Amino acid sequence: MKLIIIGGVTGGASAAARARRLSEDAEIILIERGPDVSFANCGLPYHIGNVIPDRNKLLVVTPQRLRERFRLDVRVNSNVTAIDPVAKTITIAQRDGKTAVETWDKIILAPGAAPIRPAWPGVDLPGVFTLRNLQDMDRIKGAVDRGAKRAVMIGGGFIGLELVENFVARGVQTTLVERNQQVLGPFDAEMTTPITEALIQHGVQVLFGETTMAIESQDGALAVRLETGKLLPTDLVVMGLGVRPENVLAVQAGLEVGPRGGIRVNEFLQTSHPDIYAVGDAIEVRDFVSGDPTQVPLAGPANRQGRIAADNVLGRKSRYRGTQGTAILGAFGKTAAMTGASEKMLQRSGRPYRAIYVHPADHAGYYPGAEGMTLKVLFDPETGKLLGAQGIGGNGVDKRIDVLAVALQAGMTVYDLEQMELCYSPQYGSAKDPVNMAGFVAAGLLRGDHPQISLPELRSLPPERFPWLVDVRLPEEYAAGHLPDAVNIPVDELRSRLAEIPTDREVVTYCQVGQRGYLATRILLQAGYRVRNLSGGYRTYLLFSRTHH
Amino acid sequence: MKLIIIGGVTGGASAAARARRLSEDAEIILIERGPDVSFANCGLPYHIGNVIPDRNKLLVVTPQRLRERFRLDVRVNSNVTAIDPVAKTITIAQRDGKTAVETWDKIILAPGAAPIRPAWPGVDLPGVFTLRNLQDMDRIKGAVDRGAKRAVMIGGGFIGLELVENFVARGVQTTLVERNQQVLGPFDAEMTTPITEALIQHGVQVLFGETTMAIESQDGALAVRLETGKLLPTDLVVMGLGVRPENVLAVQAGLEVGPRGGIRVNEFLQTSHPDIYAVGDAIEVRDFVSGDPTQVPLAGPANRQGRIAADNVLGRKSRYRGTQGTAILGAFGKTAAMTGASEKMLQRSGRPYRAIYVHPADHAGYYPGAEGMTLKVLFDPETGKLLGAQGIGGNGVDKRIDVLAVALQAGMTVYDLEQMELCYSPQYGSAKDPVNMAGFVAAGLLRGDHPQISLPELRSLPPERFPWLVDVRLPEEYAAGHLPDAVNIPVDELRSRLAEIPTDREVVTYCQVGQRGYLATRILLQAGYRVRNLSGGYRTYLLFSRTHH
Repeated sequence: MKLIIIGGVTGGASAAARARRLSEDAEIILIERGPDVSFANCGLPYHIGNVIPDRNKLLVVTPQRLRERFRLDVRVNSNVTAIDPVAKTITIAQRDGKTAVETWDKIILAPGAAPIRPAWPGVDLPGVFTLRNLQDMDRIKGAVDRGAKRAVMIGGGFIGLELVENFVARGVQTTLVERNQQVLGPFDAEMTTPITEALIQHGVQVLFGETTMAIESQDGALAVRLETGKLLPTDLVVMGLGVRPENVLAVQAGLEVGPRGGIRVNEFLQTSHPDIYAVGDAIEVRDFVSGDPTQVPLAGPANRQGRIAADNVLGRKSRYRGTQGTAILGAFGKTAAMTGASEKMLQRSGRPYRAIYVHPADHAGYYPGAEGMTLKVLFDPETGKLLGAQGIGGNGVDKRIDVLAVALQAGMTVYDLEQMELCYSPQYGSAKDPVNMAGFVAAGLLRGDHPQISLPELRSLPPERFPWLVDVRLPEEYAAGHLPDAVNIPVDELRSRLAEIPTDREVVTYCQVGQRGYLATRILLQAGYRVRNLSGGYRTYLLFSRTHH
Repeated sequence: MKLIIIGGVTGGASAAARARRLSEDAEIILIERGPDVSFANCGLPYHIGNVIPDRNKLLVVTPQRLRERFRLDVRVNSNVTAIDPVAKTITIAQRDGKTAVETWDKIILAPGAAPIRPAWPGVDLPGVFTLRNLQDMDRIKGAVDRGAKRAVMIGGGFIGLELVENFVARGVQTTLVERNQQVLGPFDAEMTTPITEALIQHGVQVLFGETTMAIESQDGALAVRLETGKLLPTDLVVMGLGVRPENVLAVQAGLEVGPRGGIRVNEFLQTSHPDIYAVGDAIEVRDFVSGDPTQVPLAGPANRQGRIAADNVLGRKSRYRGTQGTAILGAFGKTAAMTGASEKMLQRSGRPYRAIYVHPADHAGYYPGAEGMTLKVLFDPETGKLLGAQGIGGNGVDKRIDVLAVALQAGMTVYDLEQMELCYSPQYGSAKDPVNMAGFVAAGLLRGDHPQISLPELRSLPPERFPWLVDVRLPEEYAAGHLPDAVNIPVDELRSRLAEIPTDREVVTYCQVGQRGYLATRILLQAGYRVRNLSGGYRTYLLFSRTHH
C-alpha cells in the first residue's frame, strides 16, 4: 500500500498519523506545499497580538518529528502539480526546481482552502494582506511591529474579529468594513449585537453595509475606497472575505466538485475516484441538520475527517456523520458560539421551526462574578427536535453550546433539555441550568402552556391585528425603557387589574427576560384571554433594536 | 383542588410555583418548618468565608414574594406534626403554640434531609455544629467572627470540603477527619488525589482512616478524640457525615420507605398513597445507570422533581427519568465533577465495564493559561455505552462532565464521543477536544486497535504472568520517575530496538499520558507481540500511587 497525502496541516497530518498507527507496512508520503506541517492555524491572530509571544509554539509538530515518530516520508516546499488518475501517478514540483513523479495506490487530498482575493484595484499593493499561514502572519505582525498605527479589516468573520481584537491589543486604530449589517455571518443578526457593541466600546470603527471598491496608495500609506465614496486612510489592510476550496488539482484530475467548488465526497470521504479520498476545508460535507451539501471550514471536523479517511484507505469502513457547524468566537471578553442551523438558514430552506430566547446567568446569581448570557434555541414545531442553538455572553457560553451540540448530535428534543442533569454548584451553574431553562421555555411553547410570539412576528402583524401590549415589569423598569404602545401592569398586580385589559383583542405580555411574562401569560390564559408572551422579553427586544448601526 | 406542600426550600418551592402556573384556581398552602423559604442552600459555606458577604443574597425568594406573585398561602415557622391519610387532614404546630388542622386533596412532601448526628459523647457541646440552614450558617460564621482559630471538619464530602476551603480563607487552621482513605466518597479514590494534595498544600491537616469517638470540652475549648487515640484540640467542630431523609411524617402516615429511609415513589413521584407525592432529598430515586433505588440529595434533581410532582398533581402525566448523580466540587482552585456510575459502584453491582483515562489540557496548549485535567470514562465492554465519567483539574472540567452527562442521558456510546463536534477556538478547547480524546482511547480499546490494561489490573497480575514493562518516554522523563522494573526505550527508537524486547512474555507499554504508549502498542502489535498500553500512562500511575496518605 502506497498512500500519498497531499496537504500536511490539519486533516492531512491527522490522516498521516492515523494511517501509520493502522499500518506499519504502508508507504506513506506526506506532501506539503508550504514549509510547515501541522501548524496551529487558529493561533495566528494571537501571535500578531503578542498573546502568544513565542512563534515556535505555533509549530505543533515539525516535519522531523513526523519522520521519526511516524516513519513518514514528509516533503515540505513541494507542490503537487498534477494527478494522473488512470496511470496513478502524481507530479511534484520541488523547491529545487526539479520535478518528481510518484506512483500511488491511494491518495488523501487535504489541500485546504485559500482566502478569497477579490479583483479590486490595489489588492496587490504592499501592506494589503490575507491571513492563512505562518508567512502571512509574519508579514502582518511585521507591519505592526514596524509601527503601523491604523488598520482596516475587510470582513467581520471569525478570523477578522480575532485579528481586530489583536490589532486593538497592539494599539492599532482599527476600522472594520463589513458588507452585511452584522458581524459573524453564520449567526442570526440579533445574536451578534453584543459583539458589535463590544467592538465599538473598544474603539473600533464599525462600518456595516459598506462594499470595498479599491485599495489605493496615498501619501506613502494606503486608503480603502468604499462604494459609498468613503475613503479610509490606513497603514495596513487585511482581507477576511472567507475562503474557497483549493480544488485545482481535484478538478484537473477529473474529480467531481460542488457548485461552490468543494470536492465531492461520499460518507466514507471518497471522491468520485474510488482510490482518492479528500478531507478538510477543501471538501463538500453533508450539513448535519438539513442533510444538504455545504462547505464548513473548521479545524475540528478536518481532524476527524483525516482519521476517517485513513481508516477507509486502510480497509476499515468508517463513516463521517456530517458537520454541525459548531463554532465559537472569543473577543473583547465576549463569547459567541453556535451549533446546527441558524434561523436564517431554516428560513432559506423553508423548514418549519420555532425559536425561543432565554437570558440566564452563567452561574448562581448570589455567587460573585455571575455574567449574563443569551441563548437562542431553534427546534421542530411538531416533535421538539433540536435544530440549532446560539449563545452570546461571557463565561459559560461555550459550555452551554457544547451541551446543546451533543443534544443535537443525539437527536434530542427540547423535552430532553428540561430533564438534563448538569453540574451544579454556585460557581459553575444553577440548580436550573441555562439549558434547562431553555428547555422549559421551549417545551412550554410546544405544550401550549406558554404561548409565545417572537419579536419579528410581532412586528410583522398588520395594524388591525396588532395586540394589546402589556409590560408586566415594575414601574421603574418600564420608565427606563419599554416597547412602543405598551401599557404597564406589574405582574403582582395583574390578577386584581384584569378589568383594565380588553377582551376583544389578542394580548401580548412581556417583562425583562420572559419569566414574569410567562406567569402573566398563565394568569391571562386561565382568565380566558387570547394571550402570548414575547419570547425573551425586553432584553431580546434590545438585541433586535440595536442590531443595525 | 386543595394542595398542601410540606417543605418550602428547593423541591417544595419549585412545586408551589409550578402548581400556581398550571392552576389559578387551586388552593395552595406551602408549609415550612423554618423561618425561610427557597434559600440558597448551596451558598451557605461561601457566606461563612465572606465570599458572599451579603447574607440577604442567600434569600432567593421571600415568603412575601411567594404570596404576592404566586398567590400562595405561605406558612413559615409551622411544623406539620401528623398526616391523616384516611381523613385527609394534617395537623400543624404553629410558632404561637397553637395547633391548626387543614384538609387536603393532594400533598407534596418536600421535607428534605437532615444532617446525620452521631451518638458521640459531646456532640451537643457548644461549638459543635452541622450545616443545613441559614441558622446553622449564622452559628458557624458567628464562631469564626468571634475569633475561632482552629476548626475540625469531620467528613470530607462536598459540603465538608467547601467549608474547609472557606475556613482556610478566613485564616482558620483546619483539620479534616475522614473515616475513609479518600475525600468525596462518590468518586473513585484515585480521582480525588489532586483535591487531597490541594488541601495539604493549603495547610489543611488531612487525617484519613480516622474515626471520631468523642468530642470533649478542654480548657475552655474543644477537642476531638479519635479511635486511634489522637486528640485534636480545636475551637469549633463541624460534622459533615452525610444526611438522612426526613421521613418521620411519611412513616407516621404509613407511606412506604426504602431500607435507607428514603420515601418510596413511582416514576410519577407518587408515594404509596395515591394522593401524596414526594420530592427532593427525602425520597428514594431510581439510579439512572443501574436502575436500582438510591438516595441522591442534589438541588438540581429536587427542583425538577418539584415541577414534575406539581404536573402530576394537576392532572398531567409527567415522568421523572431517574438521577444520574451529576455533581461538582470547586475548592482551592481545583474542580472535581462526575456523572453516572463510579468504578467502585460498578464493581459492587458486578456490572461489566471498562475504564479509560486521558490527561488532556482544557484548551490548546499553545494558547496561554492551559490547565491539565484528568478524565476517567466508564463504559460497557460490549456495546461501548457510557456508564459514568469523572473529571479532575481546573478550568473546563465542568464543561466536559456536562457534555458527558448529556451523552449518558442520551444513551450514547464511546463511538459517539469520537464524533462529537464541540466548540473549538484556542481559548476554549482543542481541535480534538478532551471528550473526543476519551472517545478515541475508549473506542480504540473496544475495537482491539488499542489493547489497554488498567493499573489495578497490572498490579493484580501474579508474578509468573507479570508483563515486560517498557517505558517509551524520553530518558530524562524516565530518570525523573518510572514504574518499578520498567525498561526505557523511547518510542522513536522502538522500531529499531525490537530485538531487545522478549517475545515470550506479554509486554506492557506506558508513557506520560498514554499517547506515545498507544503508538508503541500499535508498533509492537503489528510486529507480533502480545502487548497492552497502561491506560492513562505515568500520570494515572501517580494518581493511584499518591492516593493513600
